[in-house]
Amino acid sequence: MKVSAIITLKKDVLDPQGKVIQQTLDGMGFKDVNEVRQGKYFEIDVKENDPKKAQKIVEDMCNKLLANLVIENYKIIEIQ
Amino acid sequence: MKVSAIITLKKDVLDPQGKVIQQTLDGMGFKDVNEVRQGKYFEIDVKENDPKKAQKIVEDMCNKLLANLVIENYKIIEIQ
Repeated sequence: MKVSAIITLKKDVLDPQGKVIQQTLDGMGFKDVNEVRQGKYFEIDVKENDPKKAQKIVEDMCNKLLANLVIENYKIIEIQ
Repeated sequence: MKVSAIITLKKDVLDPQGKVIQQTLDGMGFKDVNEVRQGKYFEIDVKENDPKKAQKIVEDMCNKLLANLVIENYKIIEIQ
């Protein structure tokens, strides 16, 4: 199954990269932007046909490698 | 409104970063992984209360700045 996960910075963590993108957008004429925050997206194809088990495996990967839980959150957004 | 977009490499474009993550996962004991592909995630808060208009604005941003349409696709996944 293909499991999609997004990893975002926690709410109170500064996102300088997002800030730069916001400034660039502003310079291009997109004036009405309150905030831009950037995150990571992973699409992981695991050899597991049970959606719940596949989700568990990817959550495990996020906990152990993909996300830095001190400053980041992860969310599984799709399993197919 | 907050619009969430993901940007992924097109299907036929190699993803060396995803490959490295897959190898690392393999080394950590996650043996049953067919493929890992990495992408970007953006959460953009625009001053626009109409969901359709907000989506249009962010699609415009993706076309002009956030995505490289030669090798990447973008998808709006959430508007709230």
